[in-house]
Amino acid sequence: MTYTFSNKIASLAPSAIREILKATSQPGIIPFAAGNPAPEAFPIEAVREISRRLLLERPVDCLQYGVTEGYAPLRARVKDDLRARLGLGKPFDELIITSGAQQAVDLATKILCNEGDVVIAESPSFIGSLNTFRSYGVRLRGVPMQADGMDVDRLEAILKSERQVRFLYTIPNFQNPAGVTMSLEKRRRVYELARQYGTLILEDNPYGDLIYEGEALPCIKSFDDDGIVIYAGSFSKILSPGLRVGYTLAPSELIAKMTVGKQASDVHTTIFSQLIVDEWMRHYDIPAHLQYLRALYKAKRDRMCGGLAETPLQFQIPAGGLFLWCALPDEIEMLAFARAAVARKVAVVPGSAFLVEPAETVNAVRLNFSTPTDDQLSEGVAILRDMFAEKY
Amino acid sequence: MTYTFSNKIASLAPSAIREILKATSQPGIIPFAAGNPAPEAFPIEAVREISRRLLLERPVDCLQYGVTEGYAPLRARVKDDLRARLGLGKPFDELIITSGAQQAVDLATKILCNEGDVVIAESPSFIGSLNTFRSYGVRLRGVPMQADGMDVDRLEAILKSERQVRFLYTIPNFQNPAGVTMSLEKRRRVYELARQYGTLILEDNPYGDLIYEGEALPCIKSFDDDGIVIYAGSFSKILSPGLRVGYTLAPSELIAKMTVGKQASDVHTTIFSQLIVDEWMRHYDIPAHLQYLRALYKAKRDRMCGGLAETPLQFQIPAGGLFLWCALPDEIEMLAFARAAVARKVAVVPGSAFLVEPAETVNAVRLNFSTPTDDQLSEGVAILRDMFAEKY
Repeated sequence: MTYTFSNKIASLAPSAIREILKATSQPGIIPFAAGNPAPEAFPIEAVREISRRLLLERPVDCLQYGVTEGYAPLRARVKDDLRARLGLGKPFDELIITSGAQQAVDLATKILCNEGDVVIAESPSFIGSLNTFRSYGVRLRGVPMQADGMDVDRLEAILKSERQVRFLYTIPNFQNPAGVTMSLEKRRRVYELARQYGTLILEDNPYGDLIYEGEALPCIKSFDDDGIVIYAGSFSKILSPGLRVGYTLAPSELIAKMTVGKQASDVHTTIFSQLIVDEWMRHYDIPAHLQYLRALYKAKRDRMCGGLAETPLQFQIPAGGLFLWCALPDEIEMLAFARAAVARKVAVVPGSAFLVEPAETVNAVRLNFSTPTDDQLSEGVAILRDMFAEKY
Repeated sequence: MTYTFSNKIASLAPSAIREILKATSQPGIIPFAAGNPAPEAFPIEAVREISRRLLLERPVDCLQYGVTEGYAPLRARVKDDLRARLGLGKPFDELIITSGAQQAVDLATKILCNEGDVVIAESPSFIGSLNTFRSYGVRLRGVPMQADGMDVDRLEAILKSERQVRFLYTIPNFQNPAGVTMSLEKRRRVYELARQYGTLILEDNPYGDLIYEGEALPCIKSFDDDGIVIYAGSFSKILSPGLRVGYTLAPSELIAKMTVGKQASDVHTTIFSQLIVDEWMRHYDIPAHLQYLRALYKAKRDRMCGGLAETPLQFQIPAGGLFLWCALPDEIEMLAFARAAVARKVAVVPGSAFLVEPAETVNAVRLNFSTPTDDQLSEGVAILRDMFAEKY
């Protein structure tokens, strides 16, 4: 039988990049292309003890159906935490638990976008979110990244010229893949522009807690007197991605629609996961765990950046997060470089994977420093250095 | 700010029925409106021991990212099990793990349907699936249910007259809400009609293992020489709904597209849940557990059916599953009856919640017998009996 697929899914065709990414999961490959937490990042003892106690004291709660909005005590706890630590949340805001922050992006798009509507994103941006937008048949417009965040003049030009903009997607902290942090001035400007042009902002903040130097800047959501910011967060990078627990803080009218959308997607997020996260927040020293993670990843970042300092790769040292964005010299072509690296057992992601509009080009690769072991970091960096030394 | 929502989500507006359902979650209500497993249905000791061992021996595997298709050993195990027990699966078939069977319905619709396409469903049918279809802006056509399954002549008439039919959705075993099992003859006829008219079948089988008398009939998927059946199953009703683990067996070309769609929805299903299910299948006596569940639910069914026998409610005793579909006598109006029952602390679902097309009408209620305790079953049935005795 010949199958006919929806327009939405047909637009998510496999690409040359996907082929390279496939090769990166081969055994023996040094994983600079991934984005996984380090194995030693997981609070294993805590999860063991929490799971033991939950299944002893409240087993049926762990296994029974939950409500779509999420486990009520966890929702309240995350709301309190966002208010106390980040100054987020107005009386009009509400919070929903999602199956990872990916689902927050999915549900926001589902409730807001018809096919042909426009979503604006930083370019480059997180490929997972871009593909979610594409899966709803929206038209993507890209705003080039600069060293202090997106080009806000270009943003304004797009807002002026496009009539069907439904929201602006941004990762202000330690952006994936660019590693860039948006300046405070630009955060305020982006908020003002969104307000002025009547568009919403989807602020995705998976890496905010992984800050290695400097002061954390206020989230765009903290300016949100007007109810125009949808804030997505996640426990994937600080506790566990495998548990699939994220959340979204947004005006209650939006959360109500996201709840209807989530009911139709997966009914609710794994309740056992939600209970584990809730107990972890209640009984464990999260600030100490975050300090530990920051030291762990900062050391990995420094090992990678130090090793690459003498190569022709150009990069800005990211102040947080998990990724290093490396511009290649003109004479080295990105896809050829990525293929050659994979052939030498180092997986990197070609930068074009993260571009927003079809006409854009880039000559860069994304490297991840959280997944490789220290030995893999040293070895992988040495291999890349050798490639350049051999006048690759 | 005034928010504008997508057409898809705007069509999922709250209804009178949703109000009644809200009332049913009040404390002290006898839950004949739910669909939860009984608390005593969960293999708690097994999950305790499995979780303890997994977090001891393979903690990082429980917490790290997984692949979108699902945990490979679990996929292989479920495939083997479906082949061995139900004769399902051809060489062209593949299997994906989903976040509950609800996500299987979501992904099938996502990859197959554009807005305005037609999906055919039994009427009445499972409200969760119907809302998923609606969330993609498809046009629903309903095929009336009969005592031995859908009216296949009506199905053929619809297939003849509609050009944009993307698939037929059916729950052949102990259908929710009608409690009906499709006859073998109709299963073959439905398959033949789908083949003849070039449409796919989405066969949803969450209750197949919960059979209380008679012989299990072959799944429609077992006839699938042509690669036209998408088969969705779930561990929600036999192990735990809170873990959110379902699966879909379908031609690999469809599974590949569902994988792309799932990547954009929630990346992957909770990996800890998948590992728990895998260990449960590997090391525990599932047939014995199913025997236990059948005895448990059969007794609850009999308690409900016995108690309602002397009322004017008309129902067919379901040979399996969790639901009883009760037609009301003409002089009793469904919504008024449901409201009066809620007022007396018995929650029931008005049958109209499950209708497929706007013009359809019905005078029935759905009752669930798995969620209430035995005492609640006796008490709730007595309250309904009293309502009739009082010439309600």
